[in-house]
Amino acid sequence: MQSDTIAAISTALGEAGIGVVRVSGAQARDVVDRVFRLPSGRHARLPEHRGLFYGTVIDPFEERPIDECILLWMPGPRSYTAEDVTELQVHGGIRVVEAVLEAVLQAGARLAEPGEFTKRAFLNGRMDLSQAEAVMDLIRAKTDLARRSAWAQMQGRFSEVVRGLRRRLLELQAHVEVTLDYPEHDVEAVAAERVVAVGQSLVAEIDRLLEDARVGQILREGVVTTIAGRPNVGKSSLLNALLRRERAIVTDIPGTTRDVIEEYVNLRGIPFRLVDTAGIRETEDVVERIGVERSREMVVQSELVLLVLNGSEALTEEDIRLLAETRGRPRVVVVNKSDLPSAWEDAEIRAWTDGDPVVHVSAKSASGLGGLEEEMERAVLGGEVRTAEAAYMTNARQADLLRRARRDLEEAVHAASVGATLDVVAVQLQAAYGSLGLVIGEEAGEDLLDAIFSQFCLGK
Amino acid sequence: MQSDTIAAISTALGEAGIGVVRVSGAQARDVVDRVFRLPSGRHARLPEHRGLFYGTVIDPFEERPIDECILLWMPGPRSYTAEDVTELQVHGGIRVVEAVLEAVLQAGARLAEPGEFTKRAFLNGRMDLSQAEAVMDLIRAKTDLARRSAWAQMQGRFSEVVRGLRRRLLELQAHVEVTLDYPEHDVEAVAAERVVAVGQSLVAEIDRLLEDARVGQILREGVVTTIAGRPNVGKSSLLNALLRRERAIVTDIPGTTRDVIEEYVNLRGIPFRLVDTAGIRETEDVVERIGVERSREMVVQSELVLLVLNGSEALTEEDIRLLAETRGRPRVVVVNKSDLPSAWEDAEIRAWTDGDPVVHVSAKSASGLGGLEEEMERAVLGGEVRTAEAAYMTNARQADLLRRARRDLEEAVHAASVGATLDVVAVQLQAAYGSLGLVIGEEAGEDLLDAIFSQFCLGK
Repeated sequence: MQSDTIAAISTALGEAGIGVVRVSGAQARDVVDRVFRLPSGRHARLPEHRGLFYGTVIDPFEERPIDECILLWMPGPRSYTAEDVTELQVHGGIRVVEAVLEAVLQAGARLAEPGEFTKRAFLNGRMDLSQAEAVMDLIRAKTDLARRSAWAQMQGRFSEVVRGLRRRLLELQAHVEVTLDYPEHDVEAVAAERVVAVGQSLVAEIDRLLEDARVGQILREGVVTTIAGRPNVGKSSLLNALLRRERAIVTDIPGTTRDVIEEYVNLRGIPFRLVDTAGIRETEDVVERIGVERSREMVVQSELVLLVLNGSEALTEEDIRLLAETRGRPRVVVVNKSDLPSAWEDAEIRAWTDGDPVVHVSAKSASGLGGLEEEMERAVLGGEVRTAEAAYMTNARQADLLRRARRDLEEAVHAASVGATLDVVAVQLQAAYGSLGLVIGEEAGEDLLDAIFSQFCLGK
Repeated sequence: MQSDTIAAISTALGEAGIGVVRVSGAQARDVVDRVFRLPSGRHARLPEHRGLFYGTVIDPFEERPIDECILLWMPGPRSYTAEDVTELQVHGGIRVVEAVLEAVLQAGARLAEPGEFTKRAFLNGRMDLSQAEAVMDLIRAKTDLARRSAWAQMQGRFSEVVRGLRRRLLELQAHVEVTLDYPEHDVEAVAAERVVAVGQSLVAEIDRLLEDARVGQILREGVVTTIAGRPNVGKSSLLNALLRRERAIVTDIPGTTRDVIEEYVNLRGIPFRLVDTAGIRETEDVVERIGVERSREMVVQSELVLLVLNGSEALTEEDIRLLAETRGRPRVVVVNKSDLPSAWEDAEIRAWTDGDPVVHVSAKSASGLGGLEEEMERAVLGGEVRTAEAAYMTNARQADLLRRARRDLEEAVHAASVGATLDVVAVQLQAAYGSLGLVIGEEAGEDLLDAIFSQFCLGK
């Protein structure tokens, strides 16, 4: 348990109905005693169990009222940090929550560092490191899929998988260690065989987790998607049609900026960052050549290409050139203007599509967009329908440790298969075991913890 | 009581530790039943009194968990709106709070309009209109003084004063009405005298309230203050020295932008918007003449002028010109560079200062700034030390109604003093009574209420 008591503003800053100042630590009770009064003017008698009180926050020196307050009292260990926690819920004005925070600091708490509440929850055994990281992923989630994936990780599903891998690795290590003590050759051979079999199976499982990590990253950061095509095939109309399909109940999130040529859209829970190269070419027609080059660059940098063709006009040389140029990249060929009579058949472009999906849409009448979204989803998730209940890991640090564990395991498998001494194998298995441990925070040093929790927001 | 149940996100949107979705209305209990589960998976049994529950928010159709949740249960009439209120406190991610709001809407609530919670509090008699408006002033407060002033109004201190005025006006009206029924001349004369005496006293009280309103506006919007002076007297250094004196625990408030030539600073609880004309003149020296004109314009538009002179150099013609030009405006003459030997005495400028305060500072060594702040405060608040406990009114609508009441009262006083018939006087008194009533929301129509509450933030 940490000895000092920490406090921070835990809601986002802004003009809002509600703002919350959170306090955690052994002196939380004293802080309440100094800054909170019941409507009768009396001190609240905090019970041994959770409770809710209505009253006034005062500044502890002048005893001057600051605001009405709903006080949440959550004594440890059944609280977020496992310490005594109190939350002062007041009006969400910036000066109000700041004044309440000042009062709480005057009453003996110190300002919490970013992520310090969650760090305490980790240090006090309320969650492991991967779960703590998932808290921040949950807060930062930009889509429902990302949110659900972080939730699953927060519930410990990913941790369970990692713990399972570690258990099997520990058994394998034990087997190898025993063999080292009784170095008969045939025993060694059996152990080596087992290292190869179990090691390969563990490597395969880690590969599956890493594939999930890739998906996790997409969920967090969005799929960079270029809408390519010659002028006037309807690229901007397609962009607008896709944007209109996004349902959003919140329209003005502070800090959301809209680049002229890049739009962010959620389709089927996947965030796509749509780059409309039309914007580049058609606004910069003075320097058309630069436009074309930048457009090509965009295609190269993107993770998905939507190549738009006009189905109602004969194919042009430029269409064919673009079909050839985008070949081999993850793409969906979009034949637009399906509301008009077709000027050509899909068979005519088959030579360049290599089996990539071809969908017919009318951006104008918004038809066929469901089919396009389906293909976009398939292109990203590889056709497999992955549910958020999977043990997604959405964190680069964790992925890096898994890759290290994988490399050590592969080396152990290789060493065992070529008949190296089991001492070498044992060292590599130990290294893999250590890396997996760091994923969930076993034996994590203070430096690592500081590095992780400093990325959290204040008040969490 | 309103029949439907409303819900909204009540915390500011952003990545934060905590986000809150608030629900109010007769179905709040049903909403909890559909979207909240205890850790055991059971429904919470909500008591007749306030309570705090830990559990999970689920979406009501698929029963899929969304986030961990602390549920606040505050049954009416002892709640903010006087209706059953529940708050779902979850992680402060944008997608998390949006998902919780969606769940609550699916469970039967409808999205609240801006200010609708407070409107219900008003309609259900929990507060009068001036108190309801103070809630928003509290949330918007930019300084401690503004915050305290809004708090005082929220506590009903301003309403009390207005109610007092109305009571006295009603007595006066009653006296006049009685006289109308018994129209003997001497009784009329007595009544007319009383209208003059009481009317004048009420006008004086309203004047006091309006002066408070002026102060209230300053507290809300800041005192536009121009730092004037010829080049190189230290205008920018003075600006920087004043900025450094501001103590702020929060440095990055979203949406706070810094104009190059305008800075916002809190001194003694008063927000000053400091305009550094140096910025104009010295960056636009190509068009020096325009600079000088804009600088003059600034001086005219500002509510306070800090005229900076260099105490270590002989006065120049331009200094004298500026002293003459800013004459008659609220100003403080600032003699800078007090760290260097003086080149002239205050007596030399006495002819132009007209008794305006002259303070000596060294912007460089930050000395004398306390004295400057004192004079700035005095220039704004008129020398009177007004505490936030005064019945400040910080609202243009209220000020406007007070002015209307004042005009009607003055006309009544005039009519009574020139011997007009008491019927006319009675009509004017009635009009004044009505205007005062609208301040606190008596007989306020739906249009007025809509206009007021639509200015609130969502979720309040």
